[in-house]
Amino acid sequence: MKALVKENRDRGFTFKETEKPVPGPGEVLIRVRAAAICGTDMHYYLWNDAAEGFSSKFNLQFPMIPGHECAGDVEEVGSGVTSIKKGDRVTLETHIPCGHCFNCMNDEPHNCQNMKIYGTSCDGCFAEYAVAPESIVFRLPDEVSYEDGALFEPAGVAMRAVERADLLPGDTVLVSGSGPIGLLTIQMLYSSGAGKVIATDLDEYRLKLAKSLGAIAVNSAKENLADVIRRECAQRGGVDVIIETTGAAVVYQDLFSYLRNEGHIVTVGHPGKPVMINIMEAINLKGATMRGVFGRKIWGTWWKVASLVKNKKVDLCKVVTHRFALRDGNQAFEQVPKGSGKILFTDFS
Amino acid sequence: MKALVKENRDRGFTFKETEKPVPGPGEVLIRVRAAAICGTDMHYYLWNDAAEGFSSKFNLQFPMIPGHECAGDVEEVGSGVTSIKKGDRVTLETHIPCGHCFNCMNDEPHNCQNMKIYGTSCDGCFAEYAVAPESIVFRLPDEVSYEDGALFEPAGVAMRAVERADLLPGDTVLVSGSGPIGLLTIQMLYSSGAGKVIATDLDEYRLKLAKSLGAIAVNSAKENLADVIRRECAQRGGVDVIIETTGAAVVYQDLFSYLRNEGHIVTVGHPGKPVMINIMEAINLKGATMRGVFGRKIWGTWWKVASLVKNKKVDLCKVVTHRFALRDGNQAFEQVPKGSGKILFTDFS
Amino acid sequence: MKALVKENRDRGFTFKETEKPVPGPGEVLIRVRAAAICGTDMHYYLWNDAAEGFSSKFNLQFPMIPGHECAGDVEEVGSGVTSIKKGDRVTLETHIPCGHCFNCMNDEPHNCQNMKIYGTSCDGCFAEYAVAPESIVFRLPDEVSYEDGALFEPAGVAMRAVERADLLPGDTVLVSGSGPIGLLTIQMLYSSGAGKVIATDLDEYRLKLAKSLGAIAVNSAKENLADVIRRECAQRGGVDVIIETTGAAVVYQDLFSYLRNEGHIVTVGHPGKPVMINIMEAINLKGATMRGVFGRKIWGTWWKVASLVKNKKVDLCKVVTHRFALRDGNQAFEQVPKGSGKILFTDFS
Amino acid sequence: MKALVKENRDRGFTFKETEKPVPGPGEVLIRVRAAAICGTDMHYYLWNDAAEGFSSKFNLQFPMIPGHECAGDVEEVGSGVTSIKKGDRVTLETHIPCGHCFNCMNDEPHNCQNMKIYGTSCDGCFAEYAVAPESIVFRLPDEVSYEDGALFEPAGVAMRAVERADLLPGDTVLVSGSGPIGLLTIQMLYSSGAGKVIATDLDEYRLKLAKSLGAIAVNSAKENLADVIRRECAQRGGVDVIIETTGAAVVYQDLFSYLRNEGHIVTVGHPGKPVMINIMEAINLKGATMRGVFGRKIWGTWWKVASLVKNKKVDLCKVVTHRFALRDGNQAFEQVPKGSGKILFTDFS
Repeated sequence: MKALVKENRDRGFTFKETEKPVPGPGEVLIRVRAAAICGTDMHYYLWNDAAEGFSSKFNLQFPMIPGHECAGDVEEVGSGVTSIKKGDRVTLETHIPCGHCFNCMNDEPHNCQNMKIYGTSCDGCFAEYAVAPESIVFRLPDEVSYEDGALFEPAGVAMRAVERADLLPGDTVLVSGSGPIGLLTIQMLYSSGAGKVIATDLDEYRLKLAKSLGAIAVNSAKENLADVIRRECAQRGGVDVIIETTGAAVVYQDLFSYLRNEGHIVTVGHPGKPVMINIMEAINLKGATMRGVFGRKIWGTWWKVASLVKNKKVDLCKVVTHRFALRDGNQAFEQVPKGSGKILFTDFS
Repeated sequence: MKALVKENRDRGFTFKETEKPVPGPGEVLIRVRAAAICGTDMHYYLWNDAAEGFSSKFNLQFPMIPGHECAGDVEEVGSGVTSIKKGDRVTLETHIPCGHCFNCMNDEPHNCQNMKIYGTSCDGCFAEYAVAPESIVFRLPDEVSYEDGALFEPAGVAMRAVERADLLPGDTVLVSGSGPIGLLTIQMLYSSGAGKVIATDLDEYRLKLAKSLGAIAVNSAKENLADVIRRECAQRGGVDVIIETTGAAVVYQDLFSYLRNEGHIVTVGHPGKPVMINIMEAINLKGATMRGVFGRKIWGTWWKVASLVKNKKVDLCKVVTHRFALRDGNQAFEQVPKGSGKILFTDFS
Repeated sequence: MKALVKENRDRGFTFKETEKPVPGPGEVLIRVRAAAICGTDMHYYLWNDAAEGFSSKFNLQFPMIPGHECAGDVEEVGSGVTSIKKGDRVTLETHIPCGHCFNCMNDEPHNCQNMKIYGTSCDGCFAEYAVAPESIVFRLPDEVSYEDGALFEPAGVAMRAVERADLLPGDTVLVSGSGPIGLLTIQMLYSSGAGKVIATDLDEYRLKLAKSLGAIAVNSAKENLADVIRRECAQRGGVDVIIETTGAAVVYQDLFSYLRNEGHIVTVGHPGKPVMINIMEAINLKGATMRGVFGRKIWGTWWKVASLVKNKKVDLCKVVTHRFALRDGNQAFEQVPKGSGKILFTDFS
Repeated sequence: MKALVKENRDRGFTFKETEKPVPGPGEVLIRVRAAAICGTDMHYYLWNDAAEGFSSKFNLQFPMIPGHECAGDVEEVGSGVTSIKKGDRVTLETHIPCGHCFNCMNDEPHNCQNMKIYGTSCDGCFAEYAVAPESIVFRLPDEVSYEDGALFEPAGVAMRAVERADLLPGDTVLVSGSGPIGLLTIQMLYSSGAGKVIATDLDEYRLKLAKSLGAIAVNSAKENLADVIRRECAQRGGVDVIIETTGAAVVYQDLFSYLRNEGHIVTVGHPGKPVMINIMEAINLKGATMRGVFGRKIWGTWWKVASLVKNKKVDLCKVVTHRFALRDGNQAFEQVPKGSGKILFTDFS
């Protein structure tokens, strides 16, 4: 079969013929119909420090097929698979939990103590076919397209951020960063009760996308964000919720000052280095709650996303700006920094 | 000033000239600009058993000016009033808490142990002017009209029902009854994350309103509700949430059978008599949560409603079907059973 | 091996030699060291209406070995078992969830849509050996005895009731009924933050046990419970929480009147017939929350019980009043109504 | 009357005769019976950087009577006071909220946008008599002594930390720091469901007190805390909850590494400078929740503390190590760093 392969630490992937995988016991073979590029894939493409850290933490072995956001059809199931059958239209969770540690036994498998990562610890989905353990397969509702299905995983990160924010109806939310996760977060927020979303970025292309989704888009290099927040949140003294998606350490300098007393901040982006936080001012006197996000609630987040998509409360594909054939994989990755929302692979021939 | 007055237990109200009230210490005088008819007002109009019970519980004294859903302008404030000033555009909470009992001290003033009810325990707002204690006055955002403001109180009941339902994004909800509270509940649900709302009634006029708000409208006398729910909630085994607004005891016969395991039911309507509940089947084996609503969270619910209205996430006036002058008050009340959503008074001359 | 067997609808069990079971794929063979009698077992002993209903709902087939509360040693594991090994000291969950329905996928396997019940849908643990699916096996901490371990399951029901009660530190709780579940609930409440527990019963033997666990014990046939609650909860206007464990329909007549506004009531006992509830007074105007309990949270409840026992915050065996050999099984069951707390089997020879 | 007075920025207080205050409208005059020394008082005594910052933030004017933790008898009430009367035994909240801002209207008066602080923004309680607004007066249950009552405020900080920790029954908690707040936190934790508390300090005097309250006491300068936590929390991979009370920035270097995945950390101590936090490792990949504490929930926290004290679930005076007469005030403050738990003034003559 055809696949994108990471063969070593060099920049780029190789599009090549590889052996079609065979599902083992408890595994499922999927014909991939749509797949999306995530930030982790981009790190692997570039092979930067983040790639080095993440791949070592989760035991990446070369050669490896990257990719973990996808949807497709089940072609075959291995022995012992009971909940999924041939012909099912499915998408995949990226976190592969052990199922037996304390966290797995307490509804926190997304933070399993023995976590493996799909498309890192094993081959992923940038290929004609992909094999996955039954435990990470989620069936798509009939009404949902493969393209939407391929976006369930990142949409789930956005929804998980909303879940962790204790959002109340009518809340004003600051979404820091308008990349794919930021854009999906805007959608999830409005469909979950937000009254108003303020989204920032430095890239006008992305700000335009944010605006098209109903956000007040702020170019933080050109406008004074503090003024915007003072204007929009006069009585509350700040936004009710902040969702940070950039992972830029510099953002943390003023971030807490935008939050109202007793507000919630959710961190999704991974800063490459520690950030300075004034615990007294930013956390204690403010009565703030700060929560991190790593993956999605399995499967609570998925059911929420599936229902919102199915009932047309969100339109995930609004964040898609480019579609490529898998054979043009490297071209797709080069497009990311040039101006893009979410990029899909839709042709695997 | 002109006012509708309940002078005794006879059916109807008297539209008459009464003395313009003077705000005492801690009180506010409001020029009423819009007011809405609530079920309690209708009970007082008819003076039925419900009127007898409620008026005795909350110490109604004849003659009394009914009405508690309104918006208007502050004309004068009594001594000691600090948070409200002349010229403020305001609406009113109906529950007058004592401020000092255990419930008041624990964020539950809506269930104060020494509760008084505006427009029952004292004169209300079906008049040119109304006096109210500062403690129940809520300032309207500039962007909100008097008509919308007059609907904050019933919209708050709907929002309180949603608050008590532990609604999750994408949930399917059964709203039992499509009267004004049911209709407002549909709006609050969709703006707070619901994926799909199924609304019932026996009245086609109201079902049409429910449908126009996006609900799947079911005439429970003509359609088999169980079938609808089986179709719409196949995988979940029932709706995630039920909000009961009719107060019809007969509704309870099958109500819990529509709820999925671990679902939530919120009761807003007051049945006139006890209902039979099979604790084992309906509550225990189902793992159900049942909660009652009495009024709104003070002031959490109000801020949510205000923000959703201000940010145009809901349009409360969509539930308004008739507008009357106060002098045609009895005519307005006679309209209620003939086919109506919410009815407003908008002319107080 | 030796076992108690239910061979037909006649009263009583038969102690007899049966075939030692062999663990199939995904199953575990346990040598039983301690087992406890539950209300369901008693229903099966008597074969009353409750037995008829429950056995039909969960597909009991004669002959069947009853019993589901136990602890023991793993002697052998079937193929594919990965989390449990020979020599592990274990106890068992009673609910066997399918693992794949909406509830199972949303952290509610205790309310699985395809539930099977251990010791009903299949053979149970009143035997020298028992076989169970790996998915319901819980490993005991080293510090915990077999006898304590055999009580994890009913202690889990008590803990689940506490979990569902939204208990706050210092709360006053009414435990309706002082049978084994009521007694365990008293322990769980005090170890989880309760300030004061009021326990009722009609049986002086059980009231004495309740008192020994620190409860204010009230014989509701002799004392006026309303007076006791008025005295103990003057400022709050009622108890903060009610946990109903008797399943006596008559109890519901006054139960809600003991609850403070915005209080929580958890129903554990299964009334044999529907009860009358005044929704307006008991639920709505009171702002009450009512929740049912069916089993334990898998595995959250178990970890809590295990930690409290291990850290000596509770002493489960304080509720044990009798110990029998399995061969005297019928004698044990006859003891239940004569005056007992929890009854254990500790000799399986 | 006699009082301790802070007259200027010099070290120490002056014990002197001052004018007995007169309660104005809405105020209450209290004869002080017991008062306790808090860290803020110590800062004022020394007049260090923290004193400079806090006093300027909350508008301290010289001369000022410090002190805010006390209990006493109401001697007189000003006009308009309705909930408190002469003869009431009372204690005081330190936060004086405005009552009308967004936070005050949303059950967050402890984080009022216009906060004043008792014993900083106005005179406090280190005196024979103290005046306070009715809005911060809390009546003591009859069973509670003045000394216990004087500790309600700091015990409330401890309880607030527990409230913010989402503690579950059986949890293992790390209390960082065994000063008065740390010691009270140990008590609140055990009375609220904790299974095991590990408490740290560098001071053997305080570690001994921590141990006497049931904690595993660890001198972090002598023992390897990571080893202790590995031993005590093997399966969970860390403690469930951390409550940080020292305010030592250095503590944050390793703090998050002791927390299990999806654990909760509550910060009570105020570090004098910003701390470095690795958002990716400590917050995101860990799925941590971090919350700050500023004061107590008004009045929820108070009712919990009052009930636990009244029902003898905690014994606040166990943290008291010294008692002084007010006239020996400076001597009391000099004792603090020499080895102490909580220090009380119990003689005001």
